[in-house]
Amino acid sequence: MSKEENAVYIGRKRIVDYCLVVVTIFNKGGNKCTIRARGRSISTAVDVAEITKRKYLPMVEVSDVKIGSEVLESDMGPKTVSTIDITLVRKSGK
Amino acid sequence: MSKEENAVYIGRKRIVDYCLVVVTIFNKGGNKCTIRARGRSISTAVDVAEITKRKYLPMVEVSDVKIGSEVLESDMGPKTVSTIDITLVRKSGK
Repeated sequence: MSKEENAVYIGRKRIVDYCLVVVTIFNKGGNKCTIRARGRSISTAVDVAEITKRKYLPMVEVSDVKIGSEVLESDMGPKTVSTIDITLVRKSGK
Repeated sequence: MSKEENAVYIGRKRIVDYCLVVVTIFNKGGNKCTIRARGRSISTAVDVAEITKRKYLPMVEVSDVKIGSEVLESDMGPKTVSTIDITLVRKSGK
């Protein structure tokens, strides 16, 4: 996961905290936002995308979902974890 | 999530148990398999797809990932949960 503009990295905060970050990106005029997560946070990333879309930003839709793997260095040697990238975009004309 | 042919529903078993189900589908000549999960099992679904592809079935690729929401009836009234459908297909010519 390389750093990029309008990327929201999901960690251990509450779902609503991440929803607020996404809402702020679109309210400031952003047209695109990528929600990224690894490992156990993947379920939270899907919750953030779905809840934001349903409750806060009806003019936004999921344009792409990518899954992958990444090798992380840990104390016990390299460890492969799953990743997800969910791209939200403003619907055309909204 | 409606029942369909070659769908693998992720629950509380071990990741490797689901990988084996997917491997069996493709080894029996199947060309497509959909891994489906709800809620906290979504992370496991991504693990199953990625590990199966990487370790057991290099001739298989992810053709589509869909996320969504579903309303479940629970003791405490209706509850909305996130869902994921990951479609694996045999690469052409493999």
